[in-house]
Amino acid sequence: MGLWDIDKIEYVGRGNGPVEGLGFQYYDADKVVAGKKMKDWCRFGVAWWHTFDQELVDPFGVGTARRPWDGKYSDPMDNALAKVDYAFEFFQKLGVEYFCFHDRDIAPEGETLRETNANLDKVVDKIAENMESTGVKLLWNTSSLFTNARFVEGAATSPNANVYAYAAAQLKKSLEIGKRLNGENYVFWGGREGYENLWVTDMKREQEHMAKFFHMCADYAKEIGMGAQFLIEPKAKEPMTHQYDFDAATACNFLRAYDLIDTFKLNLEGNHANLAGHTYQHEIRVARDNGVLGSLDANQGDMLLGWDLDEFPTNLYEATSVMWEVLDEGQIGPHGGLNFDAKPRRSSFAAEDLFRAHIAGMDTFAAGLLVAAKMHEDRYIEDLVANRYSTFDSGIGETVENGTATLASLNDYAIDMPQSKILESVKPDHLEDVKATINNYIVDALANA
Amino acid sequence: MGLWDIDKIEYVGRGNGPVEGLGFQYYDADKVVAGKKMKDWCRFGVAWWHTFDQELVDPFGVGTARRPWDGKYSDPMDNALAKVDYAFEFFQKLGVEYFCFHDRDIAPEGETLRETNANLDKVVDKIAENMESTGVKLLWNTSSLFTNARFVEGAATSPNANVYAYAAAQLKKSLEIGKRLNGENYVFWGGREGYENLWVTDMKREQEHMAKFFHMCADYAKEIGMGAQFLIEPKAKEPMTHQYDFDAATACNFLRAYDLIDTFKLNLEGNHANLAGHTYQHEIRVARDNGVLGSLDANQGDMLLGWDLDEFPTNLYEATSVMWEVLDEGQIGPHGGLNFDAKPRRSSFAAEDLFRAHIAGMDTFAAGLLVAAKMHEDRYIEDLVANRYSTFDSGIGETVENGTATLASLNDYAIDMPQSKILESVKPDHLEDVKATINNYIVDALANA
Amino acid sequence: MGLWDIDKIEYVGRGNGPVEGLGFQYYDADKVVAGKKMKDWCRFGVAWWHTFDQELVDPFGVGTARRPWDGKYSDPMDNALAKVDYAFEFFQKLGVEYFCFHDRDIAPEGETLRETNANLDKVVDKIAENMESTGVKLLWNTSSLFTNARFVEGAATSPNANVYAYAAAQLKKSLEIGKRLNGENYVFWGGREGYENLWVTDMKREQEHMAKFFHMCADYAKEIGMGAQFLIEPKAKEPMTHQYDFDAATACNFLRAYDLIDTFKLNLEGNHANLAGHTYQHEIRVARDNGVLGSLDANQGDMLLGWDLDEFPTNLYEATSVMWEVLDEGQIGPHGGLNFDAKPRRSSFAAEDLFRAHIAGMDTFAAGLLVAAKMHEDRYIEDLVANRYSTFDSGIGETVENGTATLASLNDYAIDMPQSKILESVKPDHLEDVKATINNYIVDALANA
Amino acid sequence: MGLWDIDKIEYVGRGNGPVEGLGFQYYDADKVVAGKKMKDWCRFGVAWWHTFDQELVDPFGVGTARRPWDGKYSDPMDNALAKVDYAFEFFQKLGVEYFCFHDRDIAPEGETLRETNANLDKVVDKIAENMESTGVKLLWNTSSLFTNARFVEGAATSPNANVYAYAAAQLKKSLEIGKRLNGENYVFWGGREGYENLWVTDMKREQEHMAKFFHMCADYAKEIGMGAQFLIEPKAKEPMTHQYDFDAATACNFLRAYDLIDTFKLNLEGNHANLAGHTYQHEIRVARDNGVLGSLDANQGDMLLGWDLDEFPTNLYEATSVMWEVLDEGQIGPHGGLNFDAKPRRSSFAAEDLFRAHIAGMDTFAAGLLVAAKMHEDRYIEDLVANRYSTFDSGIGETVENGTATLASLNDYAIDMPQSKILESVKPDHLEDVKATINNYIVDALANA
Ligand SMILES: [Co+2]
Ligand SMILES: [Co+2]
Ligand SMILES: [Co+2]
Ligand SMILES: [Co+2]
Ligand SMILES: [Co+2]
Ligand SMILES: [Co+2]
Ligand SMILES: [Co+2]
Ligand SMILES: [Co+2]
Repeated sequence: MGLWDIDKIEYVGRGNGPVEGLGFQYYDADKVVAGKKMKDWCRFGVAWWHTFDQELVDPFGVGTARRPWDGKYSDPMDNALAKVDYAFEFFQKLGVEYFCFHDRDIAPEGETLRETNANLDKVVDKIAENMESTGVKLLWNTSSLFTNARFVEGAATSPNANVYAYAAAQLKKSLEIGKRLNGENYVFWGGREGYENLWVTDMKREQEHMAKFFHMCADYAKEIGMGAQFLIEPKAKEPMTHQYDFDAATACNFLRAYDLIDTFKLNLEGNHANLAGHTYQHEIRVARDNGVLGSLDANQGDMLLGWDLDEFPTNLYEATSVMWEVLDEGQIGPHGGLNFDAKPRRSSFAAEDLFRAHIAGMDTFAAGLLVAAKMHEDRYIEDLVANRYSTFDSGIGETVENGTATLASLNDYAIDMPQSKILESVKPDHLEDVKATINNYIVDALANA
Repeated sequence: MGLWDIDKIEYVGRGNGPVEGLGFQYYDADKVVAGKKMKDWCRFGVAWWHTFDQELVDPFGVGTARRPWDGKYSDPMDNALAKVDYAFEFFQKLGVEYFCFHDRDIAPEGETLRETNANLDKVVDKIAENMESTGVKLLWNTSSLFTNARFVEGAATSPNANVYAYAAAQLKKSLEIGKRLNGENYVFWGGREGYENLWVTDMKREQEHMAKFFHMCADYAKEIGMGAQFLIEPKAKEPMTHQYDFDAATACNFLRAYDLIDTFKLNLEGNHANLAGHTYQHEIRVARDNGVLGSLDANQGDMLLGWDLDEFPTNLYEATSVMWEVLDEGQIGPHGGLNFDAKPRRSSFAAEDLFRAHIAGMDTFAAGLLVAAKMHEDRYIEDLVANRYSTFDSGIGETVENGTATLASLNDYAIDMPQSKILESVKPDHLEDVKATINNYIVDALANA
Repeated sequence: MGLWDIDKIEYVGRGNGPVEGLGFQYYDADKVVAGKKMKDWCRFGVAWWHTFDQELVDPFGVGTARRPWDGKYSDPMDNALAKVDYAFEFFQKLGVEYFCFHDRDIAPEGETLRETNANLDKVVDKIAENMESTGVKLLWNTSSLFTNARFVEGAATSPNANVYAYAAAQLKKSLEIGKRLNGENYVFWGGREGYENLWVTDMKREQEHMAKFFHMCADYAKEIGMGAQFLIEPKAKEPMTHQYDFDAATACNFLRAYDLIDTFKLNLEGNHANLAGHTYQHEIRVARDNGVLGSLDANQGDMLLGWDLDEFPTNLYEATSVMWEVLDEGQIGPHGGLNFDAKPRRSSFAAEDLFRAHIAGMDTFAAGLLVAAKMHEDRYIEDLVANRYSTFDSGIGETVENGTATLASLNDYAIDMPQSKILESVKPDHLEDVKATINNYIVDALANA
Repeated sequence: MGLWDIDKIEYVGRGNGPVEGLGFQYYDADKVVAGKKMKDWCRFGVAWWHTFDQELVDPFGVGTARRPWDGKYSDPMDNALAKVDYAFEFFQKLGVEYFCFHDRDIAPEGETLRETNANLDKVVDKIAENMESTGVKLLWNTSSLFTNARFVEGAATSPNANVYAYAAAQLKKSLEIGKRLNGENYVFWGGREGYENLWVTDMKREQEHMAKFFHMCADYAKEIGMGAQFLIEPKAKEPMTHQYDFDAATACNFLRAYDLIDTFKLNLEGNHANLAGHTYQHEIRVARDNGVLGSLDANQGDMLLGWDLDEFPTNLYEATSVMWEVLDEGQIGPHGGLNFDAKPRRSSFAAEDLFRAHIAGMDTFAAGLLVAAKMHEDRYIEDLVANRYSTFDSGIGETVENGTATLASLNDYAIDMPQSKILESVKPDHLEDVKATINNYIVDALANA
């Protein structure tokens, strides 16, 4: 069986009711949908932190996770190295071709950054070997600039120059690892880049420091020939009262203000979208419209709760909307994928639940893809939208779009138009029908899956 | 065609993609599911206020609704009487057997309550005739104690005794109408019973007044032989900062405190559940556990928005959870139904959208019923839950349930039990599997509908 | 007494407990604070819509307002003209030098825009005369592109080109009025510019239309020599599910993306800040940091409620934080003021409450100014912040700010630094002290007022 | 200096601007206010968990706290015993006469409950000695039924009977400790009593188990002569998706349903009130009106954030409203106090911040007491409220209160009353004045403190 007491997960197809054993009902990796293999649309990734490090703690309780390596290793480096084996077997049994990690996920810290980097190198060596032998690829890596106590007031926005310098040094190593492992993207989540209390915060000075930090990283990546796509991951709040990369639009404004909009794209997360008061689809659309859709963290939140749950995604509505945006865009991003930044619930603490939870998430997104592909094939939304705006395709509307209209020309057009005539030209949206039709697509596309 | 330019809505069955024309895809009124006809499980009701009075205003805009009676009647009583015809044709074309109304929905107010009551009587006469001729029944009626400016500070909780007396007089008439029309339930929504500002509010005195009001109503109903089930409809906030019937549990506490728990049950609404921070399923479960599930207002909110949207329900997850609770209970309540306290979105302003929206809502609940029935038939949730608590069926757990356990007896049992043994006995929930299985039930049950 | 049964409101100074009669306790218009008269720091404005048109309706009830002109005029134009007299007497009795209005606040609509404009002209004539005779000035005017049913799906983002043209024509007139009345700013609140449902929305096409609309407005203002500062007023949601100008950062991103950042600034509102998940101070800081602080709508929300309350501002904490930002900036904006976009609560329906509510609001901001001025004078926050970031004034921090640092140079600095040494250099913020000190400032500054 | 490098905190009186050194500005323990000493109104308590155990972790970072005992003890029991000395010196230097603790705060767990209890006994011995020698008293103790992994699915509501038995055994010991240390109250916070997912939850069976648990505890307390007031501490959510003791009203409903309303009162927390969508004042009022105000956890939340912050309370508005309720009640509860269930922010990590934060909290509540006492002395709110409801003191209103009114009698009174007359009798609330007046009270009362 190997390290995990689980067989390789296979596609078994849609069943009825509760599934016996483990298997994919919708995710059939090589099945071609809308012109591409499912696996190439989805490019699923496993998150090292939630899968191999997460103990399922919460603010009121210790960890509940039961893992096959528990209690086997007393030395942290031995434990770190052993987990590489567990990780790659996990990827292969699950049939996932990508993974993601923070520097601090994979190796323990030493007394100095030099020692920490040495620890990292040993584990990276082993990861590189495993990547080579298995063909599993690095979707992205990143650096934890938030867990250690030194980052209590920020990293690139810390008021303390030592901490800033340390963070920069940490990034140097992390970018080198990204290059070495051919990471396709490199993610910056500003976990502590924000404020706890605005009264003591020089927000502008902090953001200027952050911009300089990003420019230094871009310069260094160029210098060493590291070609990963840089991504910012927005989040509205938690841990800080206010996080600077609040949402997609806020991140774009920062990138534009500091001349970084051509260097960075976004890594969007469903739960983070909700914390900002948005749907996941909204955030993806904003990114698309700003030309910065980079990659996706696949998870879900609970809109009745106010914190980051990182639940495995199982909502078919959300998965459908996400995959529709992806289909409409043609891809998740130039190098994007669906990284499961998700953890099983605290009562799903068995090792087996790591498999079950990933299967649920993969099947949900595969199902979303199938539904969206059917909608796309029918051009259901496309036609509806094109028709809705068709008055701008010709006539007075066309003068608006081609730039020949002025307030004066539009005034001439409208000034004597009777109110009733204008009102009559406004057409209903039949929104309840649209929602019912999407329900139909979900059932129909999946019934026939 | 009649008054509405629409043919009778028929069951057409599940189609693929967008539906041509109007028709039910899931709601097949006489189809037997889990031992009862669909129509008897659902007992759908049309809400007079949203369907025949609502102009689709919002706080920033005037009404957009386009209705077949617009501009036809200059006298308000003529308009009120004409709408009775529109209403009953609507019920019949839609195939709904119940309706609900507020006193102020159906007739205009006069200079005194006596005049208002006279107006009411004329419309009620016509409604009674139509009920007789069509067989359509009154699910519940209620009284608007919130729209008129006199109720600005409450009705049964107004600090002004004149207003209180007026509200009581209004209720007298409303209960008489309920009796005359054989209303199966009578609803109290305390739209202004709450506070805007706690500093100026004697909450206890107000609630005592409210309790006396309810007792007077119960006494009067008994006196006149009016047998409708009394229902309180909880809502957390809006219009008041705080509404006294915040949620199901709060309403139960009030009913217990004032000896009304045997007289009243609850009318629960999905959107109101969300405003209180709960799911609809949660509120229904609380009502069931307290023995006060009365009836349901079928609608949905948007958890990212903080006000009462009264959207038509189209969420299959929510409908499934609601109908599962109903199936597990055996009925919605002794006389309950699903009243569409819902309005089309403001851009679904066509008369036809009233049909489309109700069809979407009815199909959604019919679909929810089909899914829940399949789950019920398989005893999927029942078995899972029974198994989860099985340690209480015998042994030490049984002593807890049969009342023989004490802290001392349980201490004897546990005091020397090794930590590891206890922990080992705690079993995982596999919650991600449960969510994936519910997805499967939705697809399977509806694919085969 | 005049039209309002109220004497001119005078400064009476700080009293004890409940105030007898009407009078300002903190707002002493000509008192010099931090180098400017109070009235010049605050530049208070009265909002026409909430003060002269608002009937205090809410989604569940009709208006409760009792106004001196109620029932006096049967012709809408007579009513509109009469209200000009009420308005200017109100401004003078209250001692406010600015006012703000929407085009649709001051005159009724006709059958065509030409007729509507003719109505407008008559009222604007009378307003101009009153401005001349009283010296009261126009802080800003704006155009209602949201109330009329034609705008149900947007104005500058309507999918209907007729509506777009009509909105443009309406703006032409509104800008002309702004020029004629020497409005210091011109505000765009995109009340319907957003979406109800993303599935039917071409967000990018809509935003491109909106950008063109703004450019046309800027071009026309230039053409006619209208010099008002253009302002966007962000709001996150309500009435639309999602408003495009969600918050300050989102508005900035839009302005940057469409080359409008040098033409527009922002008009920020406290209640809108909360709806976006922010504090008012946060939104002002974001605007300041982006160079776009324009003007302020003075009101407050209730963070436990999810809709726009437009309460009169009475929170001393919020007023202090707002006025501290203003003092630190040197002004509200080049032409900004504090417009009371606020209405009395529905139970404060007396005409007198319009005065009481404005007095409460003006006193609150005057108090906030006094507190902030004392803090500013002591450089309490300035010194605390300067000290907090002082490690960036020299040494390694200076290399970050002067652009000579690289990842490599920072790595050299940090790589061998012991963890303990870095951690030791991180200093506590004593945030609880900061909050207690602000409490002290509030009491001290106001005790001595 | 002793164990803490801090002098005893003295009352220094109100200063201007930032305070030099540490001292109380408002809290003057023996000062008589409204007939009682400040310390007797407040009965401040220190929370062991947040002050002596809390490391200031958050979900994204390790602890930042720097404590004088850090690194001194390798044996957990030595550390636990040493902290008793730190604790009692802390209480005395701060001048606080009460403290609170969970069983698991004070001693480490052993391999069995018997071992754990032995550990507990040693620490309790030392605590008892210190209580004796210092006169510091136990406001309440409680039991942690949420931190250990065994409680992942609940304790008294666990689906696992072993866990239930263990929890009961743990309570037996905890109640014995409460008796031994003369705890004035005993608190039950149901941290895991709720559900993560309703589908797998038998809510009724769980609540029945919880009720039996409480009855067993009450029986055992009686048996051993333990006379502490039992208190339930409501919380809406976190850690569970839904907590059974959602808010005060929900807890009351449970207590009434299971015949526990005479045995239990409530311990209310400001932050928890907000998580349930309420103000702190609201929850206290609900408890008062239901006769179950027991004790208070003094802290504050951030309404823009959705989790439990347990911030030290510094909001003068909230403290004023809380102390006004306490003054109106005559006491916090029969044995209640103000327990600081609060932790310094993560960046206030110095040992000194524990003092600074408690001083800020104590001064805030002392200030709130002073303001409330002045309002109470003037009968400002009392008179305003009495007047507002005065129509119920005689006439038709009196018939409502004395129980002689019926719908018929009220109908006779109201049926011919002209609408205009009723409306005229409705009086405005002048709510903006009320808020401005409370501002005046805050400044006036504190200026003269
Ligand atoms: Co993420
Ligand atoms: Co997350
Ligand atoms: Co509703
Ligand atoms: Co309802
Ligand atoms: Co507003
Ligand atoms: Co505004
Ligand atoms: Co708490
Ligand atoms: Co607490």
